[in-house]
Amino acid sequence: MPERSLIFPVAEFRQRVARLQAGMQADGQDALLLTTPADVFYVTGFLTRFWESPARPWFVVLPATGLPVAVIPAIGADLMGRCWVTDIRTWDAPDPVDDGVSLLVDTLTGLVGATGAVGIPMGLETHLRMPMADFAKVVAQIAPRRIVDATATVQRVREVKSAAEIGKIRTACGIADRAFARVPTFAQPGRPLDMVFRDFQIALLQEGADWVSYVAGGAGPGGYGDVISPASARPLARGDVLMLDTGAVHDGYFCDFDRNYAIGTADDGARRAHAALYAATDAALTALRPGMTAADLHRILTQGLVAEGAVPGQGRLGHGLGLTLTEWPSVTDKDHTILREGMVLTLEPGVQIAPGRMMVHEENIVLHADGAALLSARAPCTLPEIH
Amino acid sequence: MPERSLIFPVAEFRQRVARLQAGMQADGQDALLLTTPADVFYVTGFLTRFWESPARPWFVVLPATGLPVAVIPAIGADLMGRCWVTDIRTWDAPDPVDDGVSLLVDTLTGLVGATGAVGIPMGLETHLRMPMADFAKVVAQIAPRRIVDATATVQRVREVKSAAEIGKIRTACGIADRAFARVPTFAQPGRPLDMVFRDFQIALLQEGADWVSYVAGGAGPGGYGDVISPASARPLARGDVLMLDTGAVHDGYFCDFDRNYAIGTADDGARRAHAALYAATDAALTALRPGMTAADLHRILTQGLVAEGAVPGQGRLGHGLGLTLTEWPSVTDKDHTILREGMVLTLEPGVQIAPGRMMVHEENIVLHADGAALLSARAPCTLPEIH
Repeated sequence: MPERSLIFPVAEFRQRVARLQAGMQADGQDALLLTTPADVFYVTGFLTRFWESPARPWFVVLPATGLPVAVIPAIGADLMGRCWVTDIRTWDAPDPVDDGVSLLVDTLTGLVGATGAVGIPMGLETHLRMPMADFAKVVAQIAPRRIVDATATVQRVREVKSAAEIGKIRTACGIADRAFARVPTFAQPGRPLDMVFRDFQIALLQEGADWVSYVAGGAGPGGYGDVISPASARPLARGDVLMLDTGAVHDGYFCDFDRNYAIGTADDGARRAHAALYAATDAALTALRPGMTAADLHRILTQGLVAEGAVPGQGRLGHGLGLTLTEWPSVTDKDHTILREGMVLTLEPGVQIAPGRMMVHEENIVLHADGAALLSARAPCTLPEIH
Repeated sequence: MPERSLIFPVAEFRQRVARLQAGMQADGQDALLLTTPADVFYVTGFLTRFWESPARPWFVVLPATGLPVAVIPAIGADLMGRCWVTDIRTWDAPDPVDDGVSLLVDTLTGLVGATGAVGIPMGLETHLRMPMADFAKVVAQIAPRRIVDATATVQRVREVKSAAEIGKIRTACGIADRAFARVPTFAQPGRPLDMVFRDFQIALLQEGADWVSYVAGGAGPGGYGDVISPASARPLARGDVLMLDTGAVHDGYFCDFDRNYAIGTADDGARRAHAALYAATDAALTALRPGMTAADLHRILTQGLVAEGAVPGQGRLGHGLGLTLTEWPSVTDKDHTILREGMVLTLEPGVQIAPGRMMVHEENIVLHADGAALLSARAPCTLPEIH
C-alpha cells in the first residue's frame, strides 16, 4: 500500500471508513455501494475530471468491516492503484453486453451474506450514477440480499469535515478571495459580461484553482434578474450591479461564494440591499451555534433581512459545501438537519430589490463549538464601486 | 413564445422534437421523461452550469404529440422562460417532503393515458439524475402506466447532429486548435505539469471557450502512463512526451481532442508511435463511410496501427461527441452501432510504447455521405518538439 494517497494521508481515509462503518452498523447495512464522483473520492481519494464522460459507471463497495473494494473500468486502474485502495477489480468498459454488472454482483455477493443489506444513497440530493437497467439486473442477481437507503448513513459522516478537509476548502476560498479582489481591474463599464466571466475564470486559475467547475452571476441596472444563466454579450453599463459567483476547485474541494459590485456609482436601492445582506449575514455569524437546525439558520437570516427593511428573496439561504459545489443541508424552513461542529456551510441570503431585480450575498463558514468561523474573507460592508 | 432560444432558433428545437416524437411513435412510447443536463438542453435549449449543484432534480416531459413540459425548481423558471418552452411548472426545491414528485406525477398522468408507456433512457452510457427513492414513488404513483427503456429512441435522434450543432462543435474545435498552437509558449522544460494544465485552461478561455469542462493529459520520459489523472507538480523534463486533452465548451457543445509534444528532442520510440497513430488515423479518415459500424472503425484503426508495427493500447479508440464530452457509440470491437451521416465522432487510437508508457492521438470528425471531414485541425504528421 502506498504511504499516502494523492491528496491526503492514508490515516484520513481510514478514519472516514471507520466512521462510515460505525454508521453502517448502527443503521443495519452490510455494505455500501457508492457510484458518484464525490462518494468515490471521499472513500478512496480517486480524483479525476474523467467523470465528465458519462460513458462508464464506477463502483466502490465498502463492506461492514475491512477495506473498500473498487470495481471500475480498466482505464482507471493505474490512478486507483496510486490511491490507498488495494482491492481493485476492473473490466473493459464500455461493454454493451455486461458493463461491470457481473463483476459488481460477484463483489457484492462475495462480501455480503445472503440475508444482508446493501446500502445505497437514494434520498434527497442524491442520484445513482449507473444505468437504471443495469441497476435492476444487480438488484435481481444479488437477491435475496436487500437494497436499503443509506442516504443518512453517508450524509451524517460526510457532512462533518476533518481538519484536513477544512484546510482544503479554506485554500479554495483563498483562491477565490484573490480572484474577486482583481474583478475591478477587468469588470469595467463597456466590457461584455461574457468576457468578464472568462476574465474571472482566468483570474481563478492564475490564483491557483486546479479547475473552475462553476462560474455564474448576473448584471443589470440596480440589480440582476437571475443567477444561473450563462453570460450574455451585453456590455456592463454604469448603474449596473454585477454579481459573480464561483465554485473553484482545489484538490477536489470546492469554495462557493459570490461578490457584488456596482458599475459606477451605486444607487440607493443597491446600497441598501447590500447593507441588509451584510447585516443579516452578521446576525447569522454571531448567533450560529452547533445544535441549531438548518431551519433555525433560515429564520435568523430571514429575520435579519426583515429587520433591515429588506424583502427576502425566494429559495434557500445557504447549504452545505465540500466535495461538491453544494451539499445538504439546505437552509430552508423545511430542513431540520442539525448543524454540527465541523460542518462547512454557505450563508447565502438574497433580497428582492424590485420585481426582476435581486441581490444575493454569500460567505463560506465552518461551524466550531463556539460558533461560525469564516473561510471566505468577509465581503466589504458597503457595496464596492468600480469606476 | 420568444422568437429564438438562447442558443438556436426555435425551428431547431421543433425539428428535434419532431424527430424524437417519430421515434417514440415507432418505439411505442407515450412520453419521454428526461433528467440529465444534455437531454434537457437538447429538447429545451436550457443551458446552465447550475447542474454542478446536485441538490435539485430537473425534469422535462415530452409527450407523444405537442410541446415539451418543464417540471423544474423555481430557481430555473426565469431562464427556462427565455427558452422556447411555454409550459413551465415549478416547485420550491429542495423540498425534503415532496421534491417535485407530486408535480411530476401530475404532469405524467395528465399527459399519458392509463395504459400508456413512459420512456426513460436506462441503457448503456445513461443514468437517471434524480433520487432513486423519488423515482420509485413516481413509478408507483403513475401506475398502471409503464416505464420502458427509451435509450435507443433518444440516442438514434441525438447522435445525428444538425448543421447548427456541427457548427457549434466546429467552433469549439477551433478554440482548442488555437489553444494547442500556443502550448509551446508555456510548456517549457522545467515548467511544472500542474502549471501547464492551468496555462492551457487559460489559453482555452482566452481563445473563446465559455468554460473548460475537461482538461487531462500526462507527461513522462518517452511516453506517459495514464491519461485521466490530475496533474502533478513534477516539472517537465527534456525527453518527456507531453499530452494535453480537452473538452472545451462553446454554447453547450464540446470538442474533445488531444495533442502530443516532445519536450526537447523526441526519441525514436515516441517519433515512431506518433507516426503510427497519424497513419492509423489517416487510414480511418480515408476509409470511413456511413453504414459502417463502430466495430468496423475499431478494426480499421487497429489494423492501421498494426500495419505500422505498433502495439495498440487498451480501451476504446474513439466515441461520439456533442452535448457531453463523450457520447455513444464506443469505438470497440463490441459496439455494432451503425455510423450514420451527421454523426460527430472522435478518432482516438492509442499505442503502447513500452510497459507504462503510452501515446494517445485524437481528432474530431463529422461523417458526411462521402466520408469523414475533420472538425479539429489535423495534428502535425511528425511529433512536434518544444525547445
